[in-house]
Amino acid sequence: MRGLPPGAGANHVAPTYELIYWPGLQGRGEYVRLVLEQAGAAYRDIARLDEYGGVDAVFAVIRGEDVAGGLRPLAPPILRHEGRMFAQVANICWYLGRRHGLAPEDELLQAEANQLQLTIADLVAEAHNTHHPIAPARRYEEQREHARVYAEQFRRARLPKFLAYFEGVLEDNSARGGRTMVGDQLSYVDLSMFQTLEGLAYAFPNALARVEPTIPRLLALRQEVAGLPRIASYLASPRRLPFGEDGIFRRYPELDDPPAA
Amino acid sequence: MRGLPPGAGANHVAPTYELIYWPGLQGRGEYVRLVLEQAGAAYRDIARLDEYGGVDAVFAVIRGEDVAGGLRPLAPPILRHEGRMFAQVANICWYLGRRHGLAPEDELLQAEANQLQLTIADLVAEAHNTHHPIAPARRYEEQREHARVYAEQFRRARLPKFLAYFEGVLEDNSARGGRTMVGDQLSYVDLSMFQTLEGLAYAFPNALARVEPTIPRLLALRQEVAGLPRIASYLASPRRLPFGEDGIFRRYPELDDPPAA
Repeated sequence: MRGLPPGAGANHVAPTYELIYWPGLQGRGEYVRLVLEQAGAAYRDIARLDEYGGVDAVFAVIRGEDVAGGLRPLAPPILRHEGRMFAQVANICWYLGRRHGLAPEDELLQAEANQLQLTIADLVAEAHNTHHPIAPARRYEEQREHARVYAEQFRRARLPKFLAYFEGVLEDNSARGGRTMVGDQLSYVDLSMFQTLEGLAYAFPNALARVEPTIPRLLALRQEVAGLPRIASYLASPRRLPFGEDGIFRRYPELDDPPAA
Repeated sequence: MRGLPPGAGANHVAPTYELIYWPGLQGRGEYVRLVLEQAGAAYRDIARLDEYGGVDAVFAVIRGEDVAGGLRPLAPPILRHEGRMFAQVANICWYLGRRHGLAPEDELLQAEANQLQLTIADLVAEAHNTHHPIAPARRYEEQREHARVYAEQFRRARLPKFLAYFEGVLEDNSARGGRTMVGDQLSYVDLSMFQTLEGLAYAFPNALARVEPTIPRLLALRQEVAGLPRIASYLASPRRLPFGEDGIFRRYPELDDPPAA
């Protein structure tokens, strides 16, 4: 990976975690990065670092090399820690969250966190499918017409449904005294909800604007997470890659609503 | 739900679990049923039982009624236990698996089991998308042409990729002395792998037949799970619903390969 932004990984000494993810995009790796950043954990984003093999290191792991006797992963993001590999965003977040005080301690609340994270993952998968409805491995340009049909029902039916659900979760939890998605403390679920709202605002600014009046609690959560000192510092750093046309959330105006009149 | 097959739930006294899922189809509920059955757990499949409200009980839960102060679920399958609701298949299987000796005890192996379960969920989602690529809430007949395109790349690229991965997982674990997907004991992951292979064999008999020579370990696992006394008894009972045109796995010949010559 040439042209690495100066400072990527530079503020981290003695890394104990390695993130194995495609370089140059936020993608699903971003859900892991946010937990590592809020934890203040030392980590290497290895595909962005030539000295650790760059993108070839990702391919080596996917080919099953370098797995060191543990379970092989099918796809990034992958976290390497103490010689073991962990894949699947919800699984990595669970692992990191419990180690760094970013998951509930109560077992029932852990199940709630996991359930919410998997429901966020469902929304993220559908947001991805708006531009790749027919063939995950082919380019958007090869499935544009299918994408228009998918995106239209996503904006009309699915996006409002998911966001109304998450707004209701915040409302219920508020009635129990919590200001976050689950329990009474910040968890990886809040970080993932933030990233998903950021992504939706990037990809579907007009569709999201129509829903915004109905989701005040989600918008407040988004602001609060953005203002956490470690997250704010991360977002302002070169480690935070911009949204673009390679990730999950992509701004293709033809897939969004027209601007409000 | 009229026309309930005699005996559904009848061999279970003093149910402690309630499964809340659409009646009349296996769907994602089947992944939960298989864990409950192998655990020998007493449960009520409430939407199939008129005296517990039938399908209206499912709608009541989705509307957020009857949630008893816990986290509201977005969609079935939902497990109710001791007054709490649990949603998302991987989350329910994790919860049940740990309570009934169908999950690893070692924490690292628990993460492996969860990772595998989420990868199975990815395959299941794509199998579902073969007949609903464009609009999850609309009928297959409204998206047949999109479905043909999706299903073609699913059979050519995605199905072989996922199955080669899971075959490799069995091979790796065998080298560590295990005969199951993870660790050295049967877990919910094996039950889910079995159900997924059953579903693929129902929906894509010709495409699966082409892959079968390369997945001997998966085929052996499928046979072994089918032969577990409790699973065999369940599969032969009226509690096991047939595959059909309402679930995840559907046999639309136009979405499968042509028969081998």
